[in-house]
Amino acid sequence: MPAIRHALATSRESDFAAWYQEVIHAADMAEESGVRGCMVIKPWGYGIWERMQRLLDARIKVTGHDNCYFPLFIPLANFEREAAHVEGFAKEMAVVTHHRLITDGEGKLIPDPAAKLEEPLVVRPTSETIIGDAMSRWIQSWRDLPLKLNQWCNVVRWEMRTRMFLRTSEFLWQEGHTAHETQGEAQEHTLRMLEVYRTFAEADLSLPVIAGEKPENERFPGAVETWSIEAMMQDGKALQAGTSHYLGTSFAEAANIRFQDREGQQRLCHTTSWGVSTRMIGGIIMTHGDDDGLRVPPAIAPWQVVILPMLRDNEQDASILKYCEELQSLIAGQSALHEPVRVLLDTKAGKAAAKRWDWVRKGAPVIIEVGARDMEARTVSRLRRDRLWNSETGKPAFETPNRQECAKEIGVLLEEIQAALFLQARERRDAAIRRDIDDLDALAEFFSDDAKYPGWVEVQWSRPTGAALDAVIEQLKALKITFRNVPRDAGTSEGACIFTGEPAVERILVARTY
Amino acid sequence: MPAIRHALATSRESDFAAWYQEVIHAADMAEESGVRGCMVIKPWGYGIWERMQRLLDARIKVTGHDNCYFPLFIPLANFEREAAHVEGFAKEMAVVTHHRLITDGEGKLIPDPAAKLEEPLVVRPTSETIIGDAMSRWIQSWRDLPLKLNQWCNVVRWEMRTRMFLRTSEFLWQEGHTAHETQGEAQEHTLRMLEVYRTFAEADLSLPVIAGEKPENERFPGAVETWSIEAMMQDGKALQAGTSHYLGTSFAEAANIRFQDREGQQRLCHTTSWGVSTRMIGGIIMTHGDDDGLRVPPAIAPWQVVILPMLRDNEQDASILKYCEELQSLIAGQSALHEPVRVLLDTKAGKAAAKRWDWVRKGAPVIIEVGARDMEARTVSRLRRDRLWNSETGKPAFETPNRQECAKEIGVLLEEIQAALFLQARERRDAAIRRDIDDLDALAEFFSDDAKYPGWVEVQWSRPTGAALDAVIEQLKALKITFRNVPRDAGTSEGACIFTGEPAVERILVARTY
Repeated sequence: MPAIRHALATSRESDFAAWYQEVIHAADMAEESGVRGCMVIKPWGYGIWERMQRLLDARIKVTGHDNCYFPLFIPLANFEREAAHVEGFAKEMAVVTHHRLITDGEGKLIPDPAAKLEEPLVVRPTSETIIGDAMSRWIQSWRDLPLKLNQWCNVVRWEMRTRMFLRTSEFLWQEGHTAHETQGEAQEHTLRMLEVYRTFAEADLSLPVIAGEKPENERFPGAVETWSIEAMMQDGKALQAGTSHYLGTSFAEAANIRFQDREGQQRLCHTTSWGVSTRMIGGIIMTHGDDDGLRVPPAIAPWQVVILPMLRDNEQDASILKYCEELQSLIAGQSALHEPVRVLLDTKAGKAAAKRWDWVRKGAPVIIEVGARDMEARTVSRLRRDRLWNSETGKPAFETPNRQECAKEIGVLLEEIQAALFLQARERRDAAIRRDIDDLDALAEFFSDDAKYPGWVEVQWSRPTGAALDAVIEQLKALKITFRNVPRDAGTSEGACIFTGEPAVERILVARTY
Repeated sequence: MPAIRHALATSRESDFAAWYQEVIHAADMAEESGVRGCMVIKPWGYGIWERMQRLLDARIKVTGHDNCYFPLFIPLANFEREAAHVEGFAKEMAVVTHHRLITDGEGKLIPDPAAKLEEPLVVRPTSETIIGDAMSRWIQSWRDLPLKLNQWCNVVRWEMRTRMFLRTSEFLWQEGHTAHETQGEAQEHTLRMLEVYRTFAEADLSLPVIAGEKPENERFPGAVETWSIEAMMQDGKALQAGTSHYLGTSFAEAANIRFQDREGQQRLCHTTSWGVSTRMIGGIIMTHGDDDGLRVPPAIAPWQVVILPMLRDNEQDASILKYCEELQSLIAGQSALHEPVRVLLDTKAGKAAAKRWDWVRKGAPVIIEVGARDMEARTVSRLRRDRLWNSETGKPAFETPNRQECAKEIGVLLEEIQAALFLQARERRDAAIRRDIDDLDALAEFFSDDAKYPGWVEVQWSRPTGAALDAVIEQLKALKITFRNVPRDAGTSEGACIFTGEPAVERILVARTY
């Protein structure tokens, strides 16, 4: 097999972290903004987010939620009354203290001391408390329930060490918040939204995930149950790609969300919240990227098909362009994944080969080149991004279907790519989950510092609480691993807990994590 | 004509400002949040904004712009180097000075003195400077031009007196930013986007607007040209509904946006910016609302058709519901304004009459009631929100088409309503613009304090600058009016300027304004 000259300088194998940064740069998805911890999401990265938004939003609406918009700023008082939760996540926050800038007389701007806010405002890290305030106004009786709200917005969590998409001080997300009459209904809804996330990840993002419940120490502060979907990156680490929380009545109590029940009694609502963020884009990169750049699943590709005319600055150019325009219009008339195909005819100045590799690095699912010879043969030169190389020649694996056929089969081809990316990722993940490790030494060996990109281990444990749980967490820390979740579909457990030696009650995933 | 009992307590005639607030409340669009100057946009209001976003976004993409996302926070330095612009708008701004909260030991939270930012950050009031930074990195040569970007986001301008939708400290908007090789191309683009706004307002929002150039004193600080679309509210005041700026090279100079031109010379780009915000929703309310609440143009109505089953808690209910479901599915299969019809079957608990008036106040374009008698006759009872009352009976003007026909003609009906709202608003506006006033006394009389809801006046003027313009502005201030714009399609002027007596050079609109 001849050596392949890949489009990136860094391979996943040689340095996964550097490879990740290179993909983002090479695919022109995002860049550092110069503002601490904040990134600029560039058109290709934002286009992917827009597609994700559109698909997830439809799933959220279909399950009966209304979108609305709540203030960016949250009064300190909201955090004070939730003091228990402040411990958890709400310490590092951006605090607004002044509402005016003035010049200091030397050309510098300073916050005007005369314009200090009486009460500082916090830039929302999440909106439970302010949406809770609204719910307490909007809900009077059981007739107002369930109340199912969702918001797409930016949030800020001051982060000391940031990493593009994965951990940024400002990020974009969707946060759902619901209120229900009963515990059972709220718990059911928590799981329904977890399932929406699972379907979104697997069907729309080709991202295989394991849905399950977080152990006590990994819960959202104040939540009674926290569920997550976990995806495996190509370096074997886990990425928490979405969470769904059953909050019990504690948030309702703090925000005074009460309703008159069917018997006329005042009762507290049971609430849920759930969110998915731009972090998921990091998961898409680390799941589908390869040594040639990103591979975007067709359902979320801003352009699913890119046509590159091979122009030579001669008299044939006009007819090649015309041939490409006809192809574009044939393809645009097709459907894939229940939507019209998104096809770009890229006529930007530049050498055709350079443009091809730009689109390879960006991960457009299908790239079609058209030169004079293609036109004469009424064919096109088609490249599938998920099967880029011909392993025999070491060259790009172009196929040369007839133009008409190429258009006609584009829908099926894109759907095939969508499925192939999922199956490839799932196969890789499943091969990297060990379920047969039942003593701590074997676990320590699996996660030893020498092990390159170890995967996950599903172990059985006794679900200790309190000090016993703390002791287990110390064991995990020593191995630099964490609990991911208790998979919903994990098998039953028998025998002893790998950590405590007590009888095991369930199976839980442990892994290195982002 | 019998007296009509309108659905609102306040009429436009009696107190326009109170009526405006009542519509927002009665249509359940938004409410005060408890956070100074910030509102909560509730599902019906946000649903309208989502529809507006979708339609305007498509128009912005078709004209070749890519969406992206820039940081919420802007360093002070960006404003310092733009000191000239700070004078204009960027003084009242939310300033972030700390990145951590701690407890003060008495249960109160305070910004941690140890976590003071070295340089405060400003919550973006607009993104020219931070997008300018990115442009200076992204543009090297003429091949990178034009660069056409757009962003949907929240911005904050600290406002002392706020009014829902019209003036809030935080609001949502779209801001477009482009860079071009030449002045001509940038100016042409400024006008192209003005035209996009005009089409969006008139075709999608049924909002007649006058597109024209702002005089010098009304320009965006630093802009060479500012253009606007101006809409007339039912109290005769003007609302600036969107602006498009040609910024010359001054922003490029401040952010160092340079390119190598076709001759190899380094040159400054010519930039533009343009924006439309949630303020426009205020314009929709004050244009289309009536004494029964809001009337939403079908193109932006979250639900275009609402079906209300008249249930009586008896054995017929099930068949009425089935009859309604069939109707819903027939209607959902139809198209209006190039999209599938959005139809809701409202089965929420509550009396049918109360629900009808809720939907009237929200302004759903078509309300269909179905009771036992309708079902037996295979008809429906249909109400057009834009022709609510039968003036002879003083009762709602129900029509009772056959169910099948009702579904079949729904597309045409919705398109008719869309057009009717536009024509009604345009007629009212055109009747309220005076073009025959050519002396100051007559102008003063037109805008006297006794005049109820005066409209606009198009006068001819000599376009003075400097001190002479200041003098004119003082004259306007005395009448509590402002310049709106010089309409693109205004007639030529001859004779003397109404303000200076000098020869007039163009015609300009003056009005009270929001």
